[in-house]
Amino acid sequence: MTGLILTLNAGSSSIKFSVYDGDARLFRGQVERIGPNGRLTVKDDQDFEHPVTAPDLSDHGSAVQAILTNILPLLDGRKISAVGHRVVHGGMRFDAPAVLADETIAYLETLTPFAPLHQPHNLAGIYAARAAFGDVPQIACFDTAFHRHHPFVNDTFAIPREYYDQGVRRYGFHGLSYDYITSEIAKQSPTLAQGRVVIAHLGNGASMCAVRGGRSIASTMGFSALDGLPMGTRCGQIDAGVVLYLMQQENMTADQISDMLYKNSGLLGMSGVSNDMRTLERSDQIGAKQAIDYFIFRIQRELGAMAAVLNGIDALIFCGGIGENSTLIRERVCSGMEWMGIELDHTRNAENTPRISAELSRVTVMTIPTNEEVVIARAVRNLA
Amino acid sequence: MTGLILTLNAGSSSIKFSVYDGDARLFRGQVERIGPNGRLTVKDDQDFEHPVTAPDLSDHGSAVQAILTNILPLLDGRKISAVGHRVVHGGMRFDAPAVLADETIAYLETLTPFAPLHQPHNLAGIYAARAAFGDVPQIACFDTAFHRHHPFVNDTFAIPREYYDQGVRRYGFHGLSYDYITSEIAKQSPTLAQGRVVIAHLGNGASMCAVRGGRSIASTMGFSALDGLPMGTRCGQIDAGVVLYLMQQENMTADQISDMLYKNSGLLGMSGVSNDMRTLERSDQIGAKQAIDYFIFRIQRELGAMAAVLNGIDALIFCGGIGENSTLIRERVCSGMEWMGIELDHTRNAENTPRISAELSRVTVMTIPTNEEVVIARAVRNLA
Repeated sequence: MTGLILTLNAGSSSIKFSVYDGDARLFRGQVERIGPNGRLTVKDDQDFEHPVTAPDLSDHGSAVQAILTNILPLLDGRKISAVGHRVVHGGMRFDAPAVLADETIAYLETLTPFAPLHQPHNLAGIYAARAAFGDVPQIACFDTAFHRHHPFVNDTFAIPREYYDQGVRRYGFHGLSYDYITSEIAKQSPTLAQGRVVIAHLGNGASMCAVRGGRSIASTMGFSALDGLPMGTRCGQIDAGVVLYLMQQENMTADQISDMLYKNSGLLGMSGVSNDMRTLERSDQIGAKQAIDYFIFRIQRELGAMAAVLNGIDALIFCGGIGENSTLIRERVCSGMEWMGIELDHTRNAENTPRISAELSRVTVMTIPTNEEVVIARAVRNLA
Repeated sequence: MTGLILTLNAGSSSIKFSVYDGDARLFRGQVERIGPNGRLTVKDDQDFEHPVTAPDLSDHGSAVQAILTNILPLLDGRKISAVGHRVVHGGMRFDAPAVLADETIAYLETLTPFAPLHQPHNLAGIYAARAAFGDVPQIACFDTAFHRHHPFVNDTFAIPREYYDQGVRRYGFHGLSYDYITSEIAKQSPTLAQGRVVIAHLGNGASMCAVRGGRSIASTMGFSALDGLPMGTRCGQIDAGVVLYLMQQENMTADQISDMLYKNSGLLGMSGVSNDMRTLERSDQIGAKQAIDYFIFRIQRELGAMAAVLNGIDALIFCGGIGENSTLIRERVCSGMEWMGIELDHTRNAENTPRISAELSRVTVMTIPTNEEVVIARAVRNLA
């Protein structure tokens, strides 16, 4: 009997966790609102919510300790043999998960300037877990790693070379999701896994990835989590000239602009209604309609771009909260894309069946539920 | 006998001009380095350079006066009946050339914050011409006008709506070139003119335009002249997160970033060699090779995007200094694009013949020399 694996995903004010036995998830839960009003929930695989005691959830350290205190009694004496952390940024160095030695953590600290809104919280989770778990191996799984072998032309920006050398690159994110989807395709169709696949990860964060032979060739996200598709509250692609305009003509500070582009833009900013696609689909506000139109338009535009990068397309995969659940969004993204060989089966699309393209569609279109946590659990099992 | 038309294209330190009789250019020339070391040249249609006297070229006013003084004696007593100005920005209002009434000029002044590096110089040329020509009608032709009817989804960014309302939009530029190419297509093939055409204007400035039925649907350029394809010294598409990083982590000012992205990026910044494609093609430096690779990659990527926006593609047109002259760039852009129906005739491509696609290529590929000045001359003739 091998040990269990704990996965942690630490954000600014929350920590999500799961306990895995192989690919099977035994428990999951989260600490929300880390601080004086924090709240811990623990559920089992049947969605049954266990009672918890969490006297202190004031910081990441006490939150991880509370998770540990509450789940250990549920494990029938089995041990957590390793902990896997989701880490947004692995920088230029990591193209695979890494054991968190001191030197590795020191390197991850140097990446904070590249992802100031995420990396420090991921690191706080790592420090908390090291304190709580002692010698249990800790592994980091990076959102950037899957993209690390992009060809140079899709890794660089056209600015002076010194910036590329210091790490200003098109890293791309959502790599754990793309990794999972790629492994699922390989299971379901080894032939397709050798082909040209565009994966659309559409959730509150959203990006697309061009995969050839199982490797990422390009992604719509670049240096930060801002670029590419519009997202729940993030702008997606925007002219650098707009940022300069906001500074030079509107006298906004970098922090104010960052706040706007990360938190008040995207579907929320355009619609003035919500960052949630379900709400927008139900809304009769003109802003909600426009935000959906824009979301579709940009996905179609980038679908063409990703197909061009692959010199053609064999499959289109939808995943993420929106990609897996919105019949409407999938329908509209595929509408008008017959020119590239995409033909939807509307009945199958409405039923969320894995294959949603028509029997004779040249391009295979599928919906595959993604699972970033199991990718972490597997990586930890392989490395620990 | 109708009057002659003078076209002016005023930049920060130069004014280019031409004298047109109908579609025929009689003279052309420029004032370079406006200031104490200014230089005026005047050539006729046979490229013969006329001697000039230009005692004062210290500012835009004296430069326009010097142009006038030197060309009037060459016109055999014919008169300049109207002046046409190239103006980068027509804002939300202008979808066509406009007579420069006082109120119009006042509106164009309000657009300076949208194009601070270009609009003031265009306006300086207008003021100088009004002073020099008195009552002669003055007409403005806008680089943005051709794109003014983009659908909303390609006119907006995903930021709060108030910015759209105040004019932060995807204007697109190079409109005079796209206008000319579209008129040429209509002459050569009325059928194609009704179809889905992608025009690649590749010069020191570069952008692509998706045209359907003769109207612009989308362009790779956005709010400023920075976005989209990499250019001689401009970056093209770049993650807004990079601009924030340069400010927040590298402590660069907006002016420094603007300087870098407009003047030290693109082909020059990447290659460290030159902003001139001819020099890069001849260079054996690795940076030159990488800059060309990146240029091709981004054009192919955006070609897919523009085709997606049009729901397919019937023709691809190359124009601009690079598009019209570089056999290599056209060859490489089309290479790997067979999936969208593009097949090049390599002999024709090497000969720069108008049609360069193979006889049976589903997509027609052409090289059409663009002519932005004649578009101005025609507009002036129609309006004046």
